[in-house]
Amino acid sequence: MTGLDVFNPVSSELNQVETDLLASIDTDLPILEEAATHLIKAGGKRLRPAFALLSAKVFRDDVSYAIPLAVSLELIHMASLVHDDVIDNSELRRGQPTVKSRWGNRLSIYTGNYVLAKSLSLVADYRRRDVIEVMADTSMSICEGEIRQMRSCYDVRQGLKEYLRRIERKTALLISVSCQLGAIISGASYEHMQALKKYGYYLGMAFQITDDILDYVADEDILGKPVGSDIRQGVITLPAIYALRCSPHGMKLAEMLSSPESCASKANEIVDLIVNSDGIDYAYYASNRFAEQALRQLNYLPEVPVKESFYRIADFISGREY
Amino acid sequence: MTGLDVFNPVSSELNQVETDLLASIDTDLPILEEAATHLIKAGGKRLRPAFALLSAKVFRDDVSYAIPLAVSLELIHMASLVHDDVIDNSELRRGQPTVKSRWGNRLSIYTGNYVLAKSLSLVADYRRRDVIEVMADTSMSICEGEIRQMRSCYDVRQGLKEYLRRIERKTALLISVSCQLGAIISGASYEHMQALKKYGYYLGMAFQITDDILDYVADEDILGKPVGSDIRQGVITLPAIYALRCSPHGMKLAEMLSSPESCASKANEIVDLIVNSDGIDYAYYASNRFAEQALRQLNYLPEVPVKESFYRIADFISGREY
Repeated sequence: MTGLDVFNPVSSELNQVETDLLASIDTDLPILEEAATHLIKAGGKRLRPAFALLSAKVFRDDVSYAIPLAVSLELIHMASLVHDDVIDNSELRRGQPTVKSRWGNRLSIYTGNYVLAKSLSLVADYRRRDVIEVMADTSMSICEGEIRQMRSCYDVRQGLKEYLRRIERKTALLISVSCQLGAIISGASYEHMQALKKYGYYLGMAFQITDDILDYVADEDILGKPVGSDIRQGVITLPAIYALRCSPHGMKLAEMLSSPESCASKANEIVDLIVNSDGIDYAYYASNRFAEQALRQLNYLPEVPVKESFYRIADFISGREY
Repeated sequence: MTGLDVFNPVSSELNQVETDLLASIDTDLPILEEAATHLIKAGGKRLRPAFALLSAKVFRDDVSYAIPLAVSLELIHMASLVHDDVIDNSELRRGQPTVKSRWGNRLSIYTGNYVLAKSLSLVADYRRRDVIEVMADTSMSICEGEIRQMRSCYDVRQGLKEYLRRIERKTALLISVSCQLGAIISGASYEHMQALKKYGYYLGMAFQITDDILDYVADEDILGKPVGSDIRQGVITLPAIYALRCSPHGMKLAEMLSSPESCASKANEIVDLIVNSDGIDYAYYASNRFAEQALRQLNYLPEVPVKESFYRIADFISGREY
C-alpha cells in the first residue's frame, strides 16, 4: 500500500477528485481562495474519497457519478483539520505550514466554515435526503469527537472506552460513511451497504489507533510533524492509556501527563516511558483486532475484482504487509 | 415594532421555532448541549425565522411546514455569531456572556460547526435541492462577508462600495434568503418570489446600516454592549466612512482609525468626532433609501393581510415610526 496502488481501480476518478477539489473553491475573494487552495494542496492521502469510490466500484463499473460525493467527503475532513489547527495552535501539518500559521486564526475559522458549507452543497446535487442527512449528522458527530478529545486532554483517569468513543467520532465515522454512501448512491442492497459501512468503521478504528502509535514511533520526516506532538498537547492515546495502567512507572507518568507544563517540557521522557512499556504492542494488538473485524465484513460482499483492494488495505493496517 | 407586534401573524409559529431551536441540539455531550443551549437562549429578535414565516404566509394560511426552515435560518445566523465572538474576542452579546467567554474558543468553534451542520440537515428534510443549495451558498457568502470585514478593519481608505458589499454578505443576504425560501417552499410564482427576495435584500441593507448607527448612538443598556465597540475593534462603518471623507477632522480621524492602539484607547474621542460630523445623518439617509426600495417591492405582491407587516417593518427601519 506504500504507493497506494490499492487505489488503482479508481485512480482516474481520484485524479478527477483532485481537480474538482480545487475547482470547488469558487470565490472572488483572493485571500479565501488562497487559503482554501493551500489547505487542499497540502494534500493527504485522500483516503475518504478513495473509500467512497472503491465502495461504489463494488456495484458499478463506471463510478464517475460518485466523484462529487468523494470531493464532499474530503472537504468535510479538511474543514475539521483546519479548525483543529486553530485549536491545537499547530504550525505544521504533513510538513506544510498550516492555514492558521500563514493566515491566522480568523481566516482559518472562516475557511473551515466555507469548506464545510461547500461540502454539504455538493451532496445536495444527489437530491437524496438520506445522503445529506448522513453527511450533516457526520459533521455533527465529528464536532462531538473533537470536543471529547479537547475535554480528555491531560485526563489520566480516562479509560479504553472513552478513547474508543473519541476516535470513533473523530475518525472511524467519516471513513465508515465514505463506504456507506459510496454503496448507497450505487444502489447497493441493505446487506451490502451494511457490510461496507461496518468495514469502514472497523478499518477507521484500526487506522486511527495506528496513527496514534505513529506519533510515538515514526520518523519525523515521514510524519511531517515532531514525534510526541500528541503528548506535548496532553492528548492521551491508547499506548499512554495502557502504560498509565500497566507500566511500573504508571504513577510517575500520571503525574507528568496531568500537567500541561510537564507534557510540554518532558515530552521526550514521557514518550520513552510509554515506548518502553508494552503500550505500543498493546495498541498494535487492538488495531489488529479491528482490522480483522473489518476483513470479516468482506465475506458479505459480492465477489468482484475491487474486493482485492479492500482486503489489502485491511491487511496493511493490521500489519501483515509491514 | 417595539413590541414586535408586526410578527403577530406568525406568533404561534415563532413560539414553535423557539421550542424547536432548543430541541435541535440533540447531543449526548453535556458541555456541547449546555453551550449550544446558552447560545440559543441568549435570544435575539428571531428576525430571520419571522421573515421566512411571514413570507410563507403571503401564499398559504397554515405555515407550520415552514418552521424547520425558520429554525434552520436562525441556526445559520447563530453559527456565524458564535464564530464572530471567537474572532472578536467578545465577552458580551446582547448583554449576556458569550459562549466564548464562558467556555473558551475551542468549544465555541465546535458549537458553531455543530449548529451549522444541524442547520443544513434540517433543510434537507424539504427534499429540495434548490433550498439546500441556497442555504449552503448563503453560508459560504456569510464567510466571505466576515472575511471582508476582518480585512477592512483599520482600513481608512475603504469606500462606500466596499462597505455595502460587506454588509450585503454579512447581513442582507441571509434576510433576503429567509424571504426567498419562505416563498419558494410555499409554491410562490417566480415574480412573487423575486419581489420578496429583493424586499429582504433591501431591508437587510437598511437594517445593518441602522445597526451600525446604533453602535454610535444607542444606550448601552439597550445595545447590550458598550457604545463604540465597532470602533474599538477597528470596524469602520458608514458613519465613519462619511466622516473620514467629509468631516474637517478627516485627517485626524484617519490617523486614529488606522491604528489598533488608538482605536482601543481613543474610542470615545473617535465616536464623538464621527457623531459631530454629519456621518450619522448620512447613514440614516442611506438606510432610508434602502428601506424605500424594500417598500417598492411590495407592489408586486398579492393583496393579503400579512403585507401590512412587511410595510410596517420597512417603515420602522426607515425611521417613519421613530
